[in-house]
Amino acid sequence: MEQPTYVLLIDCPDQKGLVYDITGVLYKNGLNIIGNQEFVEREHNRFFMRTTFAGAVDEARILEGLRGVLPAGAGIRLARKSKKRIVLLVTKEQHCLGELLVRHQFDELNAEILAVIGNHDTLARFTHQFGVNFHLVAHEGKSRERHEADMLEVIHRYDPEYIVLAKYMRILSPEFVARFPNRIINIHHSFLPAFVGASPYRQAYERGVKIIGATAHFVNNDLDEGPIIVQNVIPVDHTYAVSDMIQSGRDVEKISLARALKLVFEDKVFVSGNKTIVFD
Amino acid sequence: MEQPTYVLLIDCPDQKGLVYDITGVLYKNGLNIIGNQEFVEREHNRFFMRTTFAGAVDEARILEGLRGVLPAGAGIRLARKSKKRIVLLVTKEQHCLGELLVRHQFDELNAEILAVIGNHDTLARFTHQFGVNFHLVAHEGKSRERHEADMLEVIHRYDPEYIVLAKYMRILSPEFVARFPNRIINIHHSFLPAFVGASPYRQAYERGVKIIGATAHFVNNDLDEGPIIVQNVIPVDHTYAVSDMIQSGRDVEKISLARALKLVFEDKVFVSGNKTIVFD
Amino acid sequence: MEQPTYVLLIDCPDQKGLVYDITGVLYKNGLNIIGNQEFVEREHNRFFMRTTFAGAVDEARILEGLRGVLPAGAGIRLARKSKKRIVLLVTKEQHCLGELLVRHQFDELNAEILAVIGNHDTLARFTHQFGVNFHLVAHEGKSRERHEADMLEVIHRYDPEYIVLAKYMRILSPEFVARFPNRIINIHHSFLPAFVGASPYRQAYERGVKIIGATAHFVNNDLDEGPIIVQNVIPVDHTYAVSDMIQSGRDVEKISLARALKLVFEDKVFVSGNKTIVFD
Amino acid sequence: MEQPTYVLLIDCPDQKGLVYDITGVLYKNGLNIIGNQEFVEREHNRFFMRTTFAGAVDEARILEGLRGVLPAGAGIRLARKSKKRIVLLVTKEQHCLGELLVRHQFDELNAEILAVIGNHDTLARFTHQFGVNFHLVAHEGKSRERHEADMLEVIHRYDPEYIVLAKYMRILSPEFVARFPNRIINIHHSFLPAFVGASPYRQAYERGVKIIGATAHFVNNDLDEGPIIVQNVIPVDHTYAVSDMIQSGRDVEKISLARALKLVFEDKVFVSGNKTIVFD
Repeated sequence: MEQPTYVLLIDCPDQKGLVYDITGVLYKNGLNIIGNQEFVEREHNRFFMRTTFAGAVDEARILEGLRGVLPAGAGIRLARKSKKRIVLLVTKEQHCLGELLVRHQFDELNAEILAVIGNHDTLARFTHQFGVNFHLVAHEGKSRERHEADMLEVIHRYDPEYIVLAKYMRILSPEFVARFPNRIINIHHSFLPAFVGASPYRQAYERGVKIIGATAHFVNNDLDEGPIIVQNVIPVDHTYAVSDMIQSGRDVEKISLARALKLVFEDKVFVSGNKTIVFD
Repeated sequence: MEQPTYVLLIDCPDQKGLVYDITGVLYKNGLNIIGNQEFVEREHNRFFMRTTFAGAVDEARILEGLRGVLPAGAGIRLARKSKKRIVLLVTKEQHCLGELLVRHQFDELNAEILAVIGNHDTLARFTHQFGVNFHLVAHEGKSRERHEADMLEVIHRYDPEYIVLAKYMRILSPEFVARFPNRIINIHHSFLPAFVGASPYRQAYERGVKIIGATAHFVNNDLDEGPIIVQNVIPVDHTYAVSDMIQSGRDVEKISLARALKLVFEDKVFVSGNKTIVFD
Repeated sequence: MEQPTYVLLIDCPDQKGLVYDITGVLYKNGLNIIGNQEFVEREHNRFFMRTTFAGAVDEARILEGLRGVLPAGAGIRLARKSKKRIVLLVTKEQHCLGELLVRHQFDELNAEILAVIGNHDTLARFTHQFGVNFHLVAHEGKSRERHEADMLEVIHRYDPEYIVLAKYMRILSPEFVARFPNRIINIHHSFLPAFVGASPYRQAYERGVKIIGATAHFVNNDLDEGPIIVQNVIPVDHTYAVSDMIQSGRDVEKISLARALKLVFEDKVFVSGNKTIVFD
Repeated sequence: MEQPTYVLLIDCPDQKGLVYDITGVLYKNGLNIIGNQEFVEREHNRFFMRTTFAGAVDEARILEGLRGVLPAGAGIRLARKSKKRIVLLVTKEQHCLGELLVRHQFDELNAEILAVIGNHDTLARFTHQFGVNFHLVAHEGKSRERHEADMLEVIHRYDPEYIVLAKYMRILSPEFVARFPNRIINIHHSFLPAFVGASPYRQAYERGVKIIGATAHFVNNDLDEGPIIVQNVIPVDHTYAVSDMIQSGRDVEKISLARALKLVFEDKVFVSGNKTIVFD
């Protein structure tokens, strides 16, 4: 019988002997390390480590052993490798949702999509085609507080580990975001240079940009400003009308979001301040 | 004996029959079209055409014929294919200069580097290694007007077709720039998102960007805001220190600048408003 | 009322005045050229032109006019812009099929998927989710001639313009292929270096390749040897197990196939000998 | 005073507790681990580890400690971080040589170029511009054995750690190669599909490839078949003449070679069988 695989994530202030001490705990518990990656961020002298191992695991005993050798305030996550439980938030655009639903159906997402919540019903039928629950939580005629409370009611029913904004086009309140620290993932287009204000694709067109990008990131406060997980770009040129640029933007968004989710759901991403450590 | 090749660039308001009328002028002059590209920018209904042809060319007669069929105010450039005469402006960084000097020495640049002007003498010896003139035009203790007047004195000695800012780190005055419309080319780093203020690489590092880009563009007024010719990116990750990001930025800058120059020097780039049409 | 848009594709031996003569026919018919691209392949001195125009079109009169000015044996295709009618052939892998069905449902494919034919029923339910016809044409216990005849019977029912091999894993006979010249499009993985024989991903893994590619091409005779339409690559490294390489191969295959179909269905691709001219 | 930094590379059969045992040796020697990467190749159950550390290092004592905990036959390399001493072999093409000489002059190569050896004198003057020794070792009128013996005589004078084939266009004998196991690095163009025989660019042109690649690799026996270090590609299209494809090939070759050398010279590359483990 194959033994279950575990992922151990540790982050703490760096000090001498950490790798030795940590691997010692695993070794003395008879566990076999499959892979191990460390990184020390020199700016803040912080140590990050991701270890996968297999064996007959006594979780409590390992955690106790680790706490005995790690400095106070160390972050320790120990979890059996398993699919993440997620809920998607959408508005009207289908490109990211479609990418995730197809991957989900063929088990390529390392996650279980528990439900899709939309503030419009545009994507209800499409979601149902894949046998996935769709909940309409309309925002019209509601205060933001009321709308978010209604969404939370649905979300709590599913108790997801992560919330994915698959082109959800409304701003979430700081209070909502604060409930899910490092657990909300968003995707948005990115340009060189950046364009503020309305109609960014129109602005990008007028400026003649040659590249359109996408950024997948955690949402921690400001909507488009959380720790970046993945960035990709796609080339465009003067023959692209605004609508062609929008289509290219969609293509790079869906690929970047899928890539970011894969990394997060395999527990390969640490958040450190406003940046990520990705053990790719 | 091989016949000389000519490049004809036309831009004007679009109207019916333009291609027919233009190619008619060439046909009636007994010329053989080698390549032909047109593009109509629908936003402003403007027509762009690049034609290469060979034959015994009577330039005056062709221009007269073209003026007879084109609307008033049409832009017409007719030139025998030849190397462009250029002057480079530099400060202390060598990566772009080195790329251009090596390509120049082995005749891959489609340009003759007449001289390099530096506001420091850091790169004098390096430039001389390649047998190219270097002029120190120091800015210290001078007003911007005085410094630019001194540079102009050197530039005019060479009468270049294009001025290339190969990491020239000073701002040029609007008066200086206005003397060379669509004839100054600059390269600068670009980030997603954009960072304003000092130490952009430091900011990019703190923000954990996953991509560093470079933009080559014409300088028409605001230093970093002219029509974009080429944009490229290069991936980075959390293991990159600030110094590694700077090195990656240099690599993508030199490649992007060389690519942009190749396009411009082969007469493949139109400027239209604040964007470019690139017949790649 | 908006006028219909037409695409005109011409290829013939190059001669002086072709652009002038062709645009003259359109001009004299009162048509307005929207875009125009020409290319002369110097190796075989062959002229290619793609023109889009709008207006009140008398197709027979235009064709007659064109035949009057073009050399004998010229290829002329004139068609109103419209969605292509296509049939997909699949086996068991869903990644390309999923990409095409989602794009189709949201009208991003410039094609109507008339039906999907599988030699296994693995993808029947998935196809039906999208409201698209699925036909099982099993090959087991049949000669290749019998199996292809059965497929042809289904295909002819739909009369498609193009047949897309969306990971159809059987070799088609030369007789089958000859019925659809330049009308069958295939996708397959590509490696540097190439690997022949069984288990190419296993071989690529053993050889430590750093890149996995995909090639979308027309099928004209030898399965993997027709004119190339699109090639893309995706980076891999030593941490990729064989299964990770296969997943990366799938990602690059589906993107490359979708890109190739977009180009072909917008009539931007000429076949010339064993290569393509792509007016991108 | 800053302490010197060391790199430790270990590869051996995997067994329980390796990381614990190895880091224990360093810890007990009072050393501070800066970075640490491990990888276990599951196919052959082989363990690879790269550690950088700083401190007052007693090399003999550390090696003795490591040998005490590692299985027999373990590969152990311990070296102070320093520039690698290298010799370049060239023929007539300058693009790779130029890239390396410029980087070398500005200290971006992490190597000292001791000398350039050419079998033609084409690049002698160019090399001397950079103040680097050039040796002509002509092959004409000599047997391969004689020519290689003459080259070895020059090489041994410099005692280099690595030999870089910067477009050296002659085949090296197995005897020559065997003298420098995993110490000769080559660059060559790569195509999808691969083309054997003469004029590969001509064949690639005829086949209409859309991508040209480059592969940097160790030379261990067969010239183009050693462990791959880096692969990159660059897009081309139907407008590229054979000469344009060659230029694109040069661009991607020089970038790929420089990248591979950076990785090797920073001791980030293991060779395992016929593949590499790159701790990027």
